[in-house]
Amino acid sequence: MKTSESLLDRVRRIATPNDGLVDRDVLLTWDLSNDAIATLHDLAGALRAAALEGLSLRAFDTGLAVSIFRDKSTRTRYAFRAACNLLGLATEELDESTSQVAHGETARETAAMIGFFTEVVGVRDDLFLGEGHTGMQATAASLEESHRAGALLQRPSVLNLQCDLDHPTQSMADLAHLAHHFGGVERLQGKKLVMSWAHSPSYGKPLSVPQGIVALMTRFGMDVVLAHPEGYELEAGPLEAAQGFAAKSGGRFRVTHAMDEAFEGADVVYPKSWAPGWIMRERTKLHRGGAGAALADLETQALAQNARYASWECDEAKMARTRDGAALYMHCLPADISGVSCKSGEVSAAVFERARLDTYREASYKPYAIAAMILATRFPDPGAVLEAAIARGTPRRGAGEVP
Amino acid sequence: MKTSESLLDRVRRIATPNDGLVDRDVLLTWDLSNDAIATLHDLAGALRAAALEGLSLRAFDTGLAVSIFRDKSTRTRYAFRAACNLLGLATEELDESTSQVAHGETARETAAMIGFFTEVVGVRDDLFLGEGHTGMQATAASLEESHRAGALLQRPSVLNLQCDLDHPTQSMADLAHLAHHFGGVERLQGKKLVMSWAHSPSYGKPLSVPQGIVALMTRFGMDVVLAHPEGYELEAGPLEAAQGFAAKSGGRFRVTHAMDEAFEGADVVYPKSWAPGWIMRERTKLHRGGAGAALADLETQALAQNARYASWECDEAKMARTRDGAALYMHCLPADISGVSCKSGEVSAAVFERARLDTYREASYKPYAIAAMILATRFPDPGAVLEAAIARGTPRRGAGEVP
Amino acid sequence: MKTSESLLDRVRRIATPNDGLVDRDVLLTWDLSNDAIATLHDLAGALRAAALEGLSLRAFDTGLAVSIFRDKSTRTRYAFRAACNLLGLATEELDESTSQVAHGETARETAAMIGFFTEVVGVRDDLFLGEGHTGMQATAASLEESHRAGALLQRPSVLNLQCDLDHPTQSMADLAHLAHHFGGVERLQGKKLVMSWAHSPSYGKPLSVPQGIVALMTRFGMDVVLAHPEGYELEAGPLEAAQGFAAKSGGRFRVTHAMDEAFEGADVVYPKSWAPGWIMRERTKLHRGGAGAALADLETQALAQNARYASWECDEAKMARTRDGAALYMHCLPADISGVSCKSGEVSAAVFERARLDTYREASYKPYAIAAMILATRFPDPGAVLEAAIARGTPRRGAGEVP
Repeated sequence: MKTSESLLDRVRRIATPNDGLVDRDVLLTWDLSNDAIATLHDLAGALRAAALEGLSLRAFDTGLAVSIFRDKSTRTRYAFRAACNLLGLATEELDESTSQVAHGETARETAAMIGFFTEVVGVRDDLFLGEGHTGMQATAASLEESHRAGALLQRPSVLNLQCDLDHPTQSMADLAHLAHHFGGVERLQGKKLVMSWAHSPSYGKPLSVPQGIVALMTRFGMDVVLAHPEGYELEAGPLEAAQGFAAKSGGRFRVTHAMDEAFEGADVVYPKSWAPGWIMRERTKLHRGGAGAALADLETQALAQNARYASWECDEAKMARTRDGAALYMHCLPADISGVSCKSGEVSAAVFERARLDTYREASYKPYAIAAMILATRFPDPGAVLEAAIARGTPRRGAGEVP
Repeated sequence: MKTSESLLDRVRRIATPNDGLVDRDVLLTWDLSNDAIATLHDLAGALRAAALEGLSLRAFDTGLAVSIFRDKSTRTRYAFRAACNLLGLATEELDESTSQVAHGETARETAAMIGFFTEVVGVRDDLFLGEGHTGMQATAASLEESHRAGALLQRPSVLNLQCDLDHPTQSMADLAHLAHHFGGVERLQGKKLVMSWAHSPSYGKPLSVPQGIVALMTRFGMDVVLAHPEGYELEAGPLEAAQGFAAKSGGRFRVTHAMDEAFEGADVVYPKSWAPGWIMRERTKLHRGGAGAALADLETQALAQNARYASWECDEAKMARTRDGAALYMHCLPADISGVSCKSGEVSAAVFERARLDTYREASYKPYAIAAMILATRFPDPGAVLEAAIARGTPRRGAGEVP
Repeated sequence: MKTSESLLDRVRRIATPNDGLVDRDVLLTWDLSNDAIATLHDLAGALRAAALEGLSLRAFDTGLAVSIFRDKSTRTRYAFRAACNLLGLATEELDESTSQVAHGETARETAAMIGFFTEVVGVRDDLFLGEGHTGMQATAASLEESHRAGALLQRPSVLNLQCDLDHPTQSMADLAHLAHHFGGVERLQGKKLVMSWAHSPSYGKPLSVPQGIVALMTRFGMDVVLAHPEGYELEAGPLEAAQGFAAKSGGRFRVTHAMDEAFEGADVVYPKSWAPGWIMRERTKLHRGGAGAALADLETQALAQNARYASWECDEAKMARTRDGAALYMHCLPADISGVSCKSGEVSAAVFERARLDTYREASYKPYAIAAMILATRFPDPGAVLEAAIARGTPRRGAGEVP
C-alpha cells in the first residue's frame, strides 16, 4: 500500500536520542534528556499516524517481551501487550512466586531464565515506596550480568510500567494527549496544569503518577501547580527535577494546599488520589517485617487521615473555576467516582461522565508511548527502523493483494 | 507452493454477505440472513480445504484477539485460539475481576482498555439466562462507543463463544460436519435430525446448544424434531425462528415429549442435557441477589426434577430405532457418559464409544467456523482476502524453499 | 542480510536422522540412535550460531505449540516458549483440571481438543514415578488416534519437558554446554564426569536428571561415575543403557557410594539431589489412593533418610580434589545452596557463587535443544528447513532495510 509522503517526512525528521538508550532501560523520565523525551514523543506520534494509515509496524520477525506485574493492572497490561504485538513481539507474563528465602538469589537467576530471545521486560512494582524502582534496577543489573556472561543472546531493556516513583508510560501518553488537544507540544507553553490530590476511600495509591506528571510537564514551559493537603508531599527527587525543568523551559512550578484556588483559570486539571509519603514508607517497613496486624492499623490511620479531606473532590463548582469552566479533565483510570464506584471519591459523577470519553482517548496514547520506548531501547536508530517498516508498505490487515 | 485451481475457484465463488457484518458482531445466528449463513459456511469450508493443502492463511500481519470467558471452556477456548493463530492474530485472555460496585462503569472502561489493536473479542457468557446475550450486546456497545470517540483504532467485533441463548460457533461447526457427512448442505433436505434432551447428573446447563441447533438446521429443509420432557421448554425467540425457517426451506419443525418416538427413523441424533428455563431464570435472580443458600436449594430441586427422567438416555435400544440403526450421533462435548464419567448420563458407554471419534471430527470444524466469522466481520470482502492469502501460496510450515 | 558461508556449510553437513522422528515424539533419549542424537546436537548448534548472527529462524508462518505442566517450572517453561517463538510458533498453556472420574476419557478428548493446528505438545510430568512417561505415551497415543480419525490436521509431536524417567531437553543442553566448554563432542572422550547425589532439605526430586545424564554422556566415551549413598539407586533402564553406551563408545560407567572418592580428578561435577526410588514409588501409590496423612508420614521418613547424608555437599574441599581443583560445576537449577537458599544443601555458597554464571550459560543452550527437537519431529529434512531459513537472510530485528 502506498504510504503518504508526509508520514515518511515526519519519520525522517525524528532525531536519534544521544542518551544511549539502546540496550538500556526506561525507568525515570527525569533521568532522560530533553532530546530523548522529544525522540520518544516523536516516535510515538509517528507510530500512531502510521497505525491509523493501516500500516504494519512490525520491527521484529520473532522475539519475546516479558511482563512482570507485582501489582494489579488492566490498562497498562493491555497497552503493553498491544504495543508489543504492533511491533511483532509475543508477550509472556512471569508468574513470580514470592520466595521468602534468598530473594536476591532467585531474582538474579530468574532474570537469566526469562531473558532468552527477550527484547524487553516490562515491570510494574509500585506497592512499596523504596522498593519498586530499586527492584527494577536490580532486574536490569541481573539482565546486564547474564548478557555479559554470555548467557543471554541480547541485553533486554527494562521498561517501567509503574514503580513507586514514576509512571513513564502514563506521563508520556498524557503528554501526547495534551499535545493533540492543544495542537502541538509548543502550544503547551504557558498553559496552566493542576496536578491535584483528590479524596479516595482507598489508601496506599502510589505517588508515581503525580510525580511523573509534574516532572514531565514542567519541561514544556507549562504553569504547573501541584495541589495537596499538608502531609501529602511528594518525594524530593521529582520535585527538584520539576523546579529545574520549569526554570529552563520558561514555565512555572509551585505547590499549594488549596484545591479551589489551584483550579482557578486552569487549562488542564488532573485530580487524583495518592497516599501520604509517611504511610507508604511505614507500609514498606511493615511489609518487610511481615506484620499483618500493624498493616491493618496503618490502613485505619491512613483512611482516617484521608477522610479529613473529603472535600478534595473534583466537582462542578471546582470545574467552574477553570478557564472558561472548560478545563481538560485528565485521569489515568480507574477513577473513584462519587456515587458510582464509591460514596465519596476523587470526582463527582457529573464531571466524570462529561469527561469519560476524554479519559479513554487519553489512555489510547499509551500503546504508542510504550512502542516508542521499545524502539528507542532496542535500536541505535529507531527512526530508521520505523521508516523502513513504513516504507515496506505492508498493510496490517488483509495482508496482500490478489496478484 | 502451487495452489490447486479448484481451491481458487471455490473461493472465488464465495458471495459477499449483504448483512453488513463488517465491524459488527456475530451474536445470534437467527438474526442473520440465509446469505450471511451461506457465506460463513462457504468461507469455513474453503479455509479448511486451504489448511489441508498446507497453506498459510494469514490475514493479519499483526493484530490481537481478546477472549473473555465468564464460564469454563476447553474446547471452544482452544478452537478460538487456533482460529486466531491461523489468521495471524495473537490471543489475550481478559481476567475479569468481578466488581460488585459500578459494574456498568467498569465494563464500559474495560472495553476501551482491551480494544487497542484488537480485531475480535470472543465472549463466553452462558451461566445466567437473561444476562449472557445482553452482556455481549453491552460489550459491543462499549466498543462501538470507544471507537466513535476516537479511543480505539478500529471497532472490534464481538463473537459469541456461547451465551445463554445461542452457540453459533458450535452450530456452524455442526452444520459443516453434517454437510461433510451427507455430501453437501443441499443433501440435508428431508433428513431427520432429533435435538433431544438427555438426562445428566449436573444441573444448570445452558439452553444455547439446542436453541442454536433447531434455529440453524431448519434453514436447510431438514425434518427437525425437538424432544424433551415437559418443563424443559426452550425460549420463544429461537422456537419461532425455527418454525419460520422450516416453513421457508420446505423442512419441518415439531416438538415431542417422547424420546423413543423421536428417535424413530432419525438420520441424526443430538442427545444433550439442558436445564429447565424456570430454573435458569431463578438462578439468575438469586445470583443477582447474591443468595448462597437459596442457590443450593435450587440445585437440589433441579437435580430432583432431572432424576425423574433418568430414562432419557441415548442407549443402544434408542439408536436401534434410528434409520438403519445407524444415525449419526452428535455432541458438543463433554458428554455425560453412563458408567464412565457419571453413573447415569446422557448416553450409554457403548453408544458413545462407537461415536467417539465422530464427535472429535465434529469438533474439528469449529476453528474454521470461527475463522470464517473473523474474516466476515473484519473485511468487507472476506472472499477476496481469503483468495489473496491462498494465491500468495505461502506454506504454513517449512516457510520457504532453498533458493 | 548476508549469511556467512561457514554457517551455511555447517547446516548443510547436518545428516537426516533415520529414526523416523517426524510426527513422532522425543520421550527418552536412550531410545534414540547415535545418529538421531548427533542430528539433534548439530541442529541445536547451528540454530544457536544462526541466532547469534541475528537471523530470523522462522520455520512456521503460523502454528501453535501447547505446553502441559503437571509440575512447576520456570526455566524449562521459558526455554520452551523461547524455542517456539524462535521458530514462529505461538504457545498456549493447557490448564488441566484434575478429574477424578474417567481420567482416561477426559485425556483422550483433551488431546483432540488441543491439537488444532498444534505442531508440538510439550509435557512436564515428573512428580510420580511410574506415571510421567506412561502419561506422555498416552497423550501421544491420543494425538495419533485423533489424527488418524481425521480430527486433527496434523499429528503433533510430544516433547518430554521432564518426566519421571528422563529430562532430554536438560541433558541435550548439558551436552552442548560440555561440547562448548571442551571444544567439541569428540573432546569429551576420556573426560571424567561425576553425576553425584547431593543433600537437599526437600524430598521427592525426580530421578530424571541423573538418569538422563548418565544415559547420554556415556555415548561420548566419557568416564562417567555415578555417586550416591546406598538406597538412592537409579532405575534399571537408564543404568543398563549407560553401561551399553559406555562399552560401545570406549568410555566407562561405574557406580560408587563415596562422594569424595568420586570427585578425585574429575573434569566435570554434577552434584544434585534426587529421591530414593522406594520413596518415589510409595508416593505414587499413596497419590493414586489419595492418602493425605500417609503422604505426610512418607515425607518425614524421606527427610530423615536424607539427613543422614548431610555431608554429601559439594564444598571447597571436594572441589579441590577435582582435576586442577577446577572441574566444571554443573546444575540444572535451581540449586539448594547452603546458607543461601537453605541451611544445609547440595552445594556450598562459595562453590556455587564461583560457578553461578557457568550455570546460567549451561541453561542458555536449552532453547536451542528444544528448537532442534521441534525441527526434527516436524520435518523429514530438518537440516534443509534450517538451511532455507538461514538462506532467506531475514534479520530477526529491525526487519527490512530502507529501500
